[in-house]
Amino acid sequence: MRLSQNFTKTLKDAPADEVSKNAQLLIRAGYVYKVMAGVYAYTPLGLRVLENIKQIVREEMNAVGGQELIMTNLQRKETWETTTRWSEDVVDIWFKTKLQDGTELGLAWSHEEPIMEMMQQYVKSYKDLPAKVYQFQTKLRNELRAKSGIMRGREFVMKDMYSLHATAEDLDAFYNAVIDAYKRCYDRFGIGDDTYVTFASGGAFTKFSHEFQTVCDAGEDVIYLHREKNIAINEEVIDDAIAELGISREELEPVKTAEVGNIFNFGTEKGEQMGVTFADAEGKPRPVYLGSYGIGITRVMGVVVEKFADDKGLVWPVNLAPAKVYLVQIGSDNSRAKADELYDELMGKGIEVIYDDRDERPGAKFADAELMGIPFRVTVSDRNLSENKYEFSARDRGESELLTHEELLGKLN
Amino acid sequence: MRLSQNFTKTLKDAPADEVSKNAQLLIRAGYVYKVMAGVYAYTPLGLRVLENIKQIVREEMNAVGGQELIMTNLQRKETWETTTRWSEDVVDIWFKTKLQDGTELGLAWSHEEPIMEMMQQYVKSYKDLPAKVYQFQTKLRNELRAKSGIMRGREFVMKDMYSLHATAEDLDAFYNAVIDAYKRCYDRFGIGDDTYVTFASGGAFTKFSHEFQTVCDAGEDVIYLHREKNIAINEEVIDDAIAELGISREELEPVKTAEVGNIFNFGTEKGEQMGVTFADAEGKPRPVYLGSYGIGITRVMGVVVEKFADDKGLVWPVNLAPAKVYLVQIGSDNSRAKADELYDELMGKGIEVIYDDRDERPGAKFADAELMGIPFRVTVSDRNLSENKYEFSARDRGESELLTHEELLGKLN
Repeated sequence: MRLSQNFTKTLKDAPADEVSKNAQLLIRAGYVYKVMAGVYAYTPLGLRVLENIKQIVREEMNAVGGQELIMTNLQRKETWETTTRWSEDVVDIWFKTKLQDGTELGLAWSHEEPIMEMMQQYVKSYKDLPAKVYQFQTKLRNELRAKSGIMRGREFVMKDMYSLHATAEDLDAFYNAVIDAYKRCYDRFGIGDDTYVTFASGGAFTKFSHEFQTVCDAGEDVIYLHREKNIAINEEVIDDAIAELGISREELEPVKTAEVGNIFNFGTEKGEQMGVTFADAEGKPRPVYLGSYGIGITRVMGVVVEKFADDKGLVWPVNLAPAKVYLVQIGSDNSRAKADELYDELMGKGIEVIYDDRDERPGAKFADAELMGIPFRVTVSDRNLSENKYEFSARDRGESELLTHEELLGKLN
Repeated sequence: MRLSQNFTKTLKDAPADEVSKNAQLLIRAGYVYKVMAGVYAYTPLGLRVLENIKQIVREEMNAVGGQELIMTNLQRKETWETTTRWSEDVVDIWFKTKLQDGTELGLAWSHEEPIMEMMQQYVKSYKDLPAKVYQFQTKLRNELRAKSGIMRGREFVMKDMYSLHATAEDLDAFYNAVIDAYKRCYDRFGIGDDTYVTFASGGAFTKFSHEFQTVCDAGEDVIYLHREKNIAINEEVIDDAIAELGISREELEPVKTAEVGNIFNFGTEKGEQMGVTFADAEGKPRPVYLGSYGIGITRVMGVVVEKFADDKGLVWPVNLAPAKVYLVQIGSDNSRAKADELYDELMGKGIEVIYDDRDERPGAKFADAELMGIPFRVTVSDRNLSENKYEFSARDRGESELLTHEELLGKLN
């Protein structure tokens, strides 16, 4: 991307009403645009980060046999009435709207019930199970407050997967496979070491569900960590978990965290409530087992910002960055020709580059490179070209070195 | 994709309330699931077709300098009040909802006003223009009736591009570049020969806008064609266009069509209404010029179904098909091993295959291959393997031939 062609600009200040660090930085660096509290558009830079996160998740969901589809935003009242979740006493974050004939509709905050209703059409026999489907879907949740930037949006992108099974054992096995797949996702996002599989409140079918909680000062949760045994417990279930796991409260350390994923075993609860059954080997109808697995895609982006940003701006892990290289051109026509050449060469090798070809002061270019958080900066200047060198620095370290063309390509490959 | 692992199944019948041919076929073949009238989920097969259409459009929009972003579904009342389009007397297909504090919100039916509002943040000077942005966005429109399947949904996917310019000439030049880019899109979808750039009603700034209309019996429009001069006119502007173009009504042939794209020159109308200005070279504020360019992604999918389907089912152009090959395995363990091998080989070469590895009668597999509309069918059977041959047929022709392994790869590469 040539910056001269990019419509966003870095900004000195975020909107005065924006209180979260992640949104302030993302707005200033030109990754998101604030429409209203909790509602953000993603500009070309921001969209690239989202797509990078999605692609990692997509690969890991496919690897455990997930099939990608896309459900709808508009949902039927009847779909949710069967499980009582249409009621705003039960679910307090609904956005609802109406057809012209007055029919009430819900706007997607989740898809368990719509998925189960759809699956009735395809799942008839135990031979049709298991089925594992997932989507990247824009969810709408009518949050009373929205002060955490893209970490808790009223409109946000979620990967939600649903698995249907004939037996509890089959669901358990897949549930554990998804835990491993999620761990691989967080590793690839660069937050694996700080992300804990955490006991959280369960439902009718299991005592606990599992959350993935990432250590993060801006998080809204507190978990209790037993670092030695690698056990993490959400404070909402601390008493139950201590009793169950045979540990004492004194061994646990409270830590602020952000929830970046959750998995939930519904057992046969939804199947029974909604009458979604399959015929077993004897032809007898049995309720389907349901597992539900979420990763907040935009939430992950916000958490990564909060964890890695420094006083100069964003710092992206290489896997998520909108480009690998920020190319700064300084000086004469000669350095411009050389920078053009390097841009074409790197892009031709599939190395994504943000090329700062703007008519700006070097200091402004360096400041924007830091604010945007691109992993590697390469500077082409007349002074260094006279020695056939390129200046190279890594965003997360800072000090720069002079490299030959060959050495530079070695670093970037 | 191994069909044994795919959760959808072909169905004998579409839902009784589904009256459109495109939705009936797509539901029966397992590409879409009907949530309610005008609201369809896209299963793995359907999603692949949508992504193929989107990728073609993405490449063509990037080629004219478009930058991809993603705006929001939730929209502010104030954004639309400046142009009077919040009013349901002006726009009669709004879905609206409310925040918990009672604040009214709109759900995205279009994005001209939100884009202009956002652009105010970035466009200050003539040096910041032109700006060209596009997105693939789920739009919600509260249609009174929704009887055309995915050709007119209450929820649908649209590519919408917006261009901002400093001068009318610059907008005109880009407008014409987009006409050419759109032609390339329709060519690549396989409907180029039947798609006409059509004069349609303009606005405050221009007498006419331009629609792209595809000849289609299921379409909701009628255009008047001058085949010799390659002129097409929407009936809504027939009198004006005849006068303008100096042709007579007798030379024109009425044809049923479906609108698959439109481009609109707003001139400075929105810029003036919304106060979106830039500083010209003398520092004087001037209203921004706006162009708006849409392609209905789901609509295109519906039109392609309507145009090419036959009495056996769907017929996909190769560029849009969810897979290039439908691989049918018939018979013993030997043919299964050979079919497994061929599946791995083709997928390894990047040739997408739907592998019918189900325990089904050959007749059922052949019928599903036809219903799903995959361009090429390859059958691996004991009988033909004894002569080291594979049976090959094209969906749009029908007759089959026996090919060696080498000949088969030649056909598919």
